[in-house]
Amino acid sequence: MISLSDLKGRIDRSELSPDAALAQSMAAIEAREKTIGAFVTRAKNPRAATKGPLRGIAVGIKDIIDTADMPTEMGSSIYKGWQPRADASVVMMLRRAGASIAGKTTTTAFAALDPTATLNPRNPGHTPGGSSAGSAAAVAAGMVPLALGTQTAGSVIRPASFCGVAAIKPSYRLLPTVGVKTYAWTLDTVGLFAAGVEDLAIALAAMSARPELAQHALAGPLRIGVVTQEFAGSVEAASDAALRIAAAAAEKAGGAIRVLKLPEIFTEAWQAQAIIQDFEVHRALAWEYQTHHDEIAPKLRAKMDQTADLAPSAYLEALGIAARARAAFDGAASDLDVVLTYSAPGAAPKGLASTGDPRFSRLWTLLGVPCVNVIADIADGGLPVGVQVIARFGEDAKALAAARFVEDALRQ
Amino acid sequence: MISLSDLKGRIDRSELSPDAALAQSMAAIEAREKTIGAFVTRAKNPRAATKGPLRGIAVGIKDIIDTADMPTEMGSSIYKGWQPRADASVVMMLRRAGASIAGKTTTTAFAALDPTATLNPRNPGHTPGGSSAGSAAAVAAGMVPLALGTQTAGSVIRPASFCGVAAIKPSYRLLPTVGVKTYAWTLDTVGLFAAGVEDLAIALAAMSARPELAQHALAGPLRIGVVTQEFAGSVEAASDAALRIAAAAAEKAGGAIRVLKLPEIFTEAWQAQAIIQDFEVHRALAWEYQTHHDEIAPKLRAKMDQTADLAPSAYLEALGIAARARAAFDGAASDLDVVLTYSAPGAAPKGLASTGDPRFSRLWTLLGVPCVNVIADIADGGLPVGVQVIARFGEDAKALAAARFVEDALRQ
Repeated sequence: MISLSDLKGRIDRSELSPDAALAQSMAAIEAREKTIGAFVTRAKNPRAATKGPLRGIAVGIKDIIDTADMPTEMGSSIYKGWQPRADASVVMMLRRAGASIAGKTTTTAFAALDPTATLNPRNPGHTPGGSSAGSAAAVAAGMVPLALGTQTAGSVIRPASFCGVAAIKPSYRLLPTVGVKTYAWTLDTVGLFAAGVEDLAIALAAMSARPELAQHALAGPLRIGVVTQEFAGSVEAASDAALRIAAAAAEKAGGAIRVLKLPEIFTEAWQAQAIIQDFEVHRALAWEYQTHHDEIAPKLRAKMDQTADLAPSAYLEALGIAARARAAFDGAASDLDVVLTYSAPGAAPKGLASTGDPRFSRLWTLLGVPCVNVIADIADGGLPVGVQVIARFGEDAKALAAARFVEDALRQ
Repeated sequence: MISLSDLKGRIDRSELSPDAALAQSMAAIEAREKTIGAFVTRAKNPRAATKGPLRGIAVGIKDIIDTADMPTEMGSSIYKGWQPRADASVVMMLRRAGASIAGKTTTTAFAALDPTATLNPRNPGHTPGGSSAGSAAAVAAGMVPLALGTQTAGSVIRPASFCGVAAIKPSYRLLPTVGVKTYAWTLDTVGLFAAGVEDLAIALAAMSARPELAQHALAGPLRIGVVTQEFAGSVEAASDAALRIAAAAAEKAGGAIRVLKLPEIFTEAWQAQAIIQDFEVHRALAWEYQTHHDEIAPKLRAKMDQTADLAPSAYLEALGIAARARAAFDGAASDLDVVLTYSAPGAAPKGLASTGDPRFSRLWTLLGVPCVNVIADIADGGLPVGVQVIARFGEDAKALAAARFVEDALRQ
């Protein structure tokens, strides 16, 4: 993988020109793309900026995020060749920070469940996950040091875990979703993929012009609450092992670990997430559903057919539960710095028929809290397994610092 | 003006066909559009649906709201001829309810402050207000029974007051903003214009498939808190009179009226609204600002030039104030059903150089609470003056029922 932090250090010290750094990424894409299939469109002769903290950094952009100079096809034939007028806000934030857009990465149709043809760079017989498949795979394959994805249920954290990369789903609306195809406006969140947690912190701080996001100093022993999310169903041995390994490493490195049992409202919130997602997508994709029904990818179409009659009252009740759960989270974790939990039920499932299950990310996306995936273990078949480090809403800097602490602990 | 309720009654009783109802609106547009200039694009041969609660109802759509069959030009030459792929969610909600899109109505550039050429149907020497100028004017001129606008500061309530129509800015995200050009995602809200409050209730209930929005029964005397918003600056005689007239009429009709003095947090929130708006627009319109700076309309461009250096820390502080003010509002109004306050500083200003000032709407947009404009008085020059009836977040049905009570009281 390409370390953004290392690359940026060499550029900052003038050991490497931004042009040369960008050229390295474009060559890596050229070399590996045929095998991996992470890109829908590749930029034609992208140029490196001469200034900005991310000059020379090539970025992959999930193909539901608008770009003014490349089509944005949403993973669906309905948007074949569709050329937006403007760059999405997050694309402009990258450009202003000096980054170069390397291309558009594959996405499941409308960021839902129908797999892409992208392979998992760690093991081509297993899914890279979804919906941000191309972004996770492009970073994992060492093509780009940074990529953008989006998460409505688990579409950033899950592919990051499956492909063995670091990722952050920041606090809700830390990054704007203007110019990002909507699935569920209460949930949709733009996230970042990179080789390691420090890379994420550097990139998020540069994009948002908030240096403090990369400068949080942990005070005293990190207080970690381990959450096993029984409400989300059973966990496979690989994820169970990853969580134990991460907790043990953090404790050995000086962290204060305890089990956190979440109150009943969080079980209700976990259930409410699916209702909100299913209700809102019928409004967000109303035009596609009504005018191009048969062209919608089969898993998404079946899901929408099943949920077409969801009552507004159920949705309003789910929103109420969400509001109560958000208010309750600070209290539930009041003596803790962060939560540590599974990123996915296990390692990447075999085959490309499924992108895996987002059930261990649903709650946290609903709460809008910052989640960072850290790779904790390598299971059979060379398949990585991640864990999530989660902080309170708005405490993205702490989530990143804590995730880096866990990442460092795991390396010792 | 065309009464949606009356028209719908005749259609429901088969006294008028949906086709004939739609044809009446299209003929009214043909007759008055040359004078008023409310439309950017008119639908070619729109057809009436044969079913749905809004069949036969012609609707004007503000031209920052995407339509798949008509360009969406954002009031800016940057989007000249721009044809979106999909209908916005609210357009699909109208179509599903049986309504017909009559055309796209004028908007100030990106729903900001640069006036359109639209005239105020009540007095052509005065502004119709903005940014939803065309939608307010089209309803006021009797061209359509319903129109959609958007409000980020005061862009629904103010033009409704100036043009003498009823309007609702519903609770934040009651109507989705998917496919609506973003100015500030924390604030942008889709609203409705119609001849009277009952029309708004019928239309909002039909669009959202929530019949209860039009069926709220007030229990006991309506408890109204009159708020004068000193933090928003001084008020002109015309608005002062309108508020007194509305309060007196409501009291005479049996309402329980008292003055509500808002705590200091709401003054801070009023100030925070402008910071949030100014910060977010630099992200929302980043592509336009960076790549088409000189083509941005002059008032908006000057505003953006002035606010380009707003610090993220100021924005984060403003978001914190907003969250505290939202939480405080229920308590501040705990013994009241609704708040009654000014819709604008006065009647429509003279000339077309300004669209007026949104300062009496800023707080309520930030709070995300439902606001209904009711015309309370006619000032010199035949210029209408509205007041706002405002309920708690999510109590849109009560806001509409209370506004109807005030509207009825004013007619007695």
